[in-house]
Formats: sequence, C-alpha cells, structure tokens
Amino acid sequence: ITGRDDALLRAEMDELYPADITMLLYELETEPAHYLFSLLNTEIGAEILAEIEPEDRKRFLENFSSAEIARYIEVFDSDDAVDLLQEQPIQVREEVIGLLEDREQARFIIDLLPYDEDVAGGLMQKELVKANVNWTVNECIEEIRKQAEDVEKVYAVYVVDDNQTLLGLISLKNLVLARKNTKIGNIYDEDIHYVETYRPVEEVSEIMQRYDLEAIPVVNVQKRLLGRITIDDVLDVIIEKAEEDIQAISGITGEVEEDDNLWQQVKGRLPWLIVGVIGSLMAATVIRIFEGELSKIAALAMFIPIMGSTGGNVGIQTASLIVQALADKSGLEISWKERLLKIIVIASLNGLIIGLLAGLYVLVFSQTQLVWVVSLSLMAVVLLASFMGTITPLILDRFGINPAVASGPFITTANDLVGIGTYFLIAHFLLKM
Amino acid sequence: ITGRDDALLRAEMDELYPADITMLLYELETEPAHYLFSLLNTEIGAEILAEIEPEDRKRFLENFSSAEIARYIEVFDSDDAVDLLQEQPIQVREEVIGLLEDREQARFIIDLLPYDEDVAGGLMQKELVKANVNWTVNECIEEIRKQAEDVEKVYAVYVVDDNQTLLGLISLKNLVLARKNTKIGNIYDEDIHYVETYRPVEEVSEIMQRYDLEAIPVVNVQKRLLGRITIDDVLDVIIEKAEEDIQAISGITGEVEEDDNLWQQVKGRLPWLIVGVIGSLMAATVIRIFEGELSKIAALAMFIPIMGSTGGNVGIQTASLIVQALADKSGLEISWKERLLKIIVIASLNGLIIGLLAGLYVLVFSQTQLVWVVSLSLMAVVLLASFMGTITPLILDRFGINPAVASGPFITTANDLVGIGTYFLIAHFLLKM
Repeated sequence: ITGRDDALLRAEMDELYPADITMLLYELETEPAHYLFSLLNTEIGAEILAEIEPEDRKRFLENFSSAEIARYIEVFDSDDAVDLLQEQPIQVREEVIGLLEDREQARFIIDLLPYDEDVAGGLMQKELVKANVNWTVNECIEEIRKQAEDVEKVYAVYVVDDNQTLLGLISLKNLVLARKNTKIGNIYDEDIHYVETYRPVEEVSEIMQRYDLEAIPVVNVQKRLLGRITIDDVLDVIIEKAEEDIQAISGITGEVEEDDNLWQQVKGRLPWLIVGVIGSLMAATVIRIFEGELSKIAALAMFIPIMGSTGGNVGIQTASLIVQALADKSGLEISWKERLLKIIVIASLNGLIIGLLAGLYVLVFSQTQLVWVVSLSLMAVVLLASFMGTITPLILDRFGINPAVASGPFITTANDLVGIGTYFLIAHFLLKM
Repeated sequence: ITGRDDALLRAEMDELYPADITMLLYELETEPAHYLFSLLNTEIGAEILAEIEPEDRKRFLENFSSAEIARYIEVFDSDDAVDLLQEQPIQVREEVIGLLEDREQARFIIDLLPYDEDVAGGLMQKELVKANVNWTVNECIEEIRKQAEDVEKVYAVYVVDDNQTLLGLISLKNLVLARKNTKIGNIYDEDIHYVETYRPVEEVSEIMQRYDLEAIPVVNVQKRLLGRITIDDVLDVIIEKAEEDIQAISGITGEVEEDDNLWQQVKGRLPWLIVGVIGSLMAATVIRIFEGELSKIAALAMFIPIMGSTGGNVGIQTASLIVQALADKSGLEISWKERLLKIIVIASLNGLIIGLLAGLYVLVFSQTQLVWVVSLSLMAVVLLASFMGTITPLILDRFGINPAVASGPFITTANDLVGIGTYFLIAHFLLKM
C-alpha cells in the first residue's frame, strides 16, 4: 500500500469478498483506507459502505467530497442510500442528491427521506419488480430483464392495476413454470401480506417472521404499492433490538461497544451507576435510622447483603419474564387476578426455601433471636421484589419506555432499598427494640 | 365447536391464516383442539404443527396415533419432520417412519436424524432444486416443475456434476432471463458460499448474515451437495439465542416462559437464587469477622449496600460488553496489555466520580473519619469489579459455557462478596483498629 501499486492492489482485492475487504479497511488508518477504497470498483465500494456500522461510516466519509459520495450513492439500493444520507450534514445531503445522474434514484431518495427509521416506510426500498395485471408472462419477464440491473434480489413480482394499487404477487418459481403467453391476471396470488408505511418496525418484523416471508410489499393508505422490505433489513433490526435489550438490562445507555473510545464508554456507563449510588445512599440513610438497633445487635449488619441481593435477583428474574412476554404478546392474556395469584404462589415457594436456608445459617453461625427476623424478612423481600418486578416493566411499557430497562440496575437499586427497609422494620418489631 | 358442525367449522377456518388458527387452538382444551385440528386439510395442519413451540407440540401430539402423525409428516419439509420426530418416543418415531408412503421423505428423514441440532446438518432440509451442469436451461426448468411441489421456496438452483459435487448456483432471476437452450455450464455462478454439515449453527448464521444470503447449500467433506439451510430457520436460531442470553443474564435456567406452570417457574429460578443466597451468606460471614469494628463504629454498616451494588452494577456492565464483543468477534483483537490499560482507565474515571459522590454524602450525613474509607473502598471495588467482569466471560467462553451467564447473578454475587471484603479490609487498616 505504501508503494501505491494500483494494479497489484486491485488484482489482490479482486480475490476477496466485500465483507473481507471491510475487515481489511478497519485495520488501516483513515488515509490509506481512503486510498485503497478509491481503487475498488464502484459496486464493491458501495456494498462495503452499505454494510459498515453507521458511526464508522460517518467518520470514514468525512474526507470524501460530495461528488465521491454521489458516485457510490448512484449504485446503492434506495433504502441504504437514504440511511447513509441521513447521517450526513444537510448541506452534503442536498449536494449529493443534486449530483446524482440517475434521476430515478434521486426521486427514490427524495421519496424515502421523510420516513422515520422506526416505521415500515423507513425500512423499505423503492427497488422492486412489478407487473401490470393485464400483462402476459412474457411481458413480465421483459420487465424483469429491464429492471434486473437495479433490483438486486427478486423474490417475487408484485402485481398492480393501472392505478398502481397492489393486487397480489407471483413468485419467481411460478413465473418460471408458467406459459409465456398466459395473462398475469390468471395466475397471480391474491392472498398476500403487506404493510402500510406507518406500521412500526417491530410489527413488520413480527409479520415477516410469523409467515416466513423473505420480502413484504409496503403500501400507502390507498393500497398503492410504494416499496418493499427485505428480510435482511429486518434481520438487522431484530439483532439490534436484542443488543439494545441486553444493554438496557446491563445498565448501559446509548450504543456503547467494547472497542469504543474511553469517553464514550464512561458516558455509557456512568448514568446508571450514579442511579445505583443514589439508591444505595438512600439505603444508607435507612440504615442510619436504625443505627440504635445496630449498635445494640451488631450481628444485624451481617444480613444486609442477603436482603439486597435476593431482592435484586428475584426482581430481575420476574421482570425479564414479563419483558419477554411483552415482546411476543403471548401469555399476557391471563387476567390480573390470576397473574397476581401466580406471582404470590411462586414467590412464596421460593421465599420459603430461601428463608429456610438462611434461617439454618443463622441458627448455626449467629444469634438465635435473629432466626425469625432473617427468615421472615427474606420471604417478605421475595414477595415484594416479585411484585415490583412484575409491575415495573408493565408501567414502563405503558409509557413507551423500553421495558428491558426494568431488568437492569433500576430494579436492583429499588429492590435493594425496599429489601433493606423491610428487613429493619421487621427487626424493629420482632425484637421489640 | 360443541355442535360439531364439521362443514361450518371447515368453512370458517378456510378464511384464516394458519398462524391465526394456531392462536385459536391455543385457546381450546386438548380434546376440542384435537377435533378442530383433524378437520383441517393436511397441508394447513402440517404448517401449524411446524410452527408451534416444541413443548406445546409434544403435549398436543400425545393423543395422536402414529398413523395420524405420519399423515402430517408426509407433507412436512424434511428438517421440520426430523425436529418433530426427535421429540417423540423412539417407538412412535420408528412407527411413523415405517408408515410413510412417500419413500423419498422417509429416506430424507433417516438421513437427517443423526445430526445434532446445533450444527449445520441439524438445521438443513433435503428439499432443494439441483441441476446437472450439462443440462440446458429448459431441462432445468422441467426439473423445477417436477420438484415444485416438494420445494416450498426456491431461491436458486444448485449446480452439481455427475458425482453430485456442488459446483455453483443459478439464481431464479437469471434462470428467468436466460435463453431456453443455453447450457447451465455456461451461465452458473461458481463463486458461492456453502457450509459443511459439521459447522456450528452460530457460524452458519454469521455467514448468512454477513453475505445477506436467503439460503445456503450444505455439503459433506467431499463437497457433495446434501441439503440447504434457509434464512427462516436461521432467524429462529438467532431469536432463540437472544432469548437464551437474556435469560442467562437474568439468572433463569432452562427455557422458562411467563405462562409456564408453577413448578417449572420455581425450578427455573431457584438455582441462581440459591447461588445468590450462598454468596450473600459468605458475605455475612465476612461481616461477622469484622463484628468488632462494627460494634465500635455502627455507621460502617451504612455503606455495606453501596459496596455490594456498585460492584454488581460495574461488573455486569463490563461483562455485557465483553459478551457482545465475543459474539461479533470484533474488538477482541486488541492485546491484553491494551485491554487491561483501558479497563483500568475507565474504571478509575468511574470510580473517581462515584467515590467523590459518596464521599460528599459521608461528609454531610455521617462521620468524617469514614470519608476516606468509603471513597477509597468504592474506587477499589469499581476496579476489581471491572477486572472480574472482563475475565469471567472470557474464562466461561473458553470452557464452552454461555458467557452471558457472567452478566447475571454469578457476577453480582461474586462482586458483592469481593466488594464487602474490600471495604472492611480498607476500613480495618485506615481506621487502625
């Protein structure tokens, strides 16, 4: 690369898959990466740009001129083009659109820019193959030939009427098998799934999963065909959602990755740590209230950790199951009364077993007067934590906050506090101090 | 349904999608569900059986005769057929295979039964369309016509030589566009991705995602074409994996769902709760060792919760990021020295901020002699927890245990213990007691 032997480098990169060239580029500094990238043919370059992480892409493109960016945007699928342009400053975005030679592509992009990225319209691409219901199979194949260059993956041909209203589809398989002069109108499948532009992405992903679709057409409220969403884009959304949930549970805000820089990492972690600290200091305050009891029976301090951690663990378990039930919408149909009863029974069983275990420990290693205090407190803590673990995600979900947050530091902190409070209250009354 | 008006029920169910009939069946008792199910035509019934959860399916099929099961297995894709049969007792399995009229299907199933479900061979289906390299496009289309009934989704035709060795593929799109008498050998794409039967499922899913494939051919070590894996099966694996991770993090063992019965729920939660209890009782023992200090300065007890919860929170954050880095294999290339340095810097920054906050609280609400004890302990706890959060998932991964477990109760419990131990040790030395 330092020698800048263009021909040799080109030949070597020809041997590689785009995804592998991407890995190579990540290894390089910005300058040589930009140089190497400019040697690639436009299609390969575009494929690489479409695949890399938005933040890396933004940084990488900072040294690119609008004309250079436009060169790649020409060959992008419209959905990826819009994603890339939305990361750019408005000025660059407008310049690039102005520079596009492919007027259709420019129109596609302008059509897609207004949609939010969390609805069907924001995920769709304009590239698709459609056929008029009055055409023959032969005309339809001619149309595919014309559009073949633009549409990377054809799963099916969408059938529309003269007003571009979606009527149905023909799978490529059936098109291959049909006679050349058959009318499309006689062989298309009317019974298809489609989504409106305003549907949330989660709903689209659920429909595509449930019916095993590799692409789904997107229509406006008048059922006019506007675009399609392919399974690879939905897959990305599903994976991103899972990662977000895990980060929410782990108490990380923003989208931090292990190889982000120091400041991003600190920023992503600190907010929930501080929430945790504040909660714990409130617990400290609770303990201070009972300092009198503590100085009389120092052994009480021994069981502060078990109250906090048991509460936290039980709360997280319960919250996680509720979060998963919320995600697949199953199991949430049972009534509030039933749910409450179930929670009480499960919590009582777990609480009983844990209470017995801890009670045994107290008998052997601590003061017998504490046996009842510790056992009863643990049972109460398990019950309270189960209850909080159930309602917190439901409430968060109602307010449009990702309920997975409830499985994280939030519930641990709250349960720590409630657990320790319960413990000292029970101690106070049982020991009649 | 109680009236058992077969014709009416059939007509009504004809209006519904299989996925919706499934939901209906879930609402019913076993007996009427079985009755309603038997009214469906075999294809719809098979589709429903292929989609429902394995455990529900097992329970549902308990009242079915082998002949009834065989009726649906006839029309199953081979991969789904094997999944279903592997849930059945061996006797039922053998009976069903013996009863199959479609000898090819029986052979497919027998071929697939030996594979583990976590390798490519266990995920593949035998149904695919292949063409000999010496055929013409026309012959290839004839072959698709013959196989069309068996192969639900055709994305591409795989090209093989006379020994069934995989040479490449032709996309359906190119087949539609090609002239009828062109030789397959002249137009197929040699540059394709494939996997061997023994590849782990995670690797298959990664390849399919990286290269945006909707299907991938599976070969044996001699590169003979054995089957294919489609994206919908991989999608199921990805979603299952994400759910497993979240359960591991939340301290739930097995695959518990919110609507499982009481005993399953208790069983899924109890093991990690008990681990938590044992850890906390060990913490109690640590506190007992320092009972002397505690009885002199009761205020020391106030800060037990903050040591435990800060340690837990920091540990989980760190572990989660490492788990995610392990999953995409990115960011793990930096050296041990660099990683360690980075961890120390991030932890020191976070520790400093948290330490200051807590120190301030101590100054205002507690005894000034504890300011240094609390602040220094917190910094030490953050450092230790970061370190443990980093190495625990790496060690678990090395031993083939799901590293996500490290983000759960395991790390919280360990950090609770270490945090409290550190605190009292520092208190002991700083207060020179």
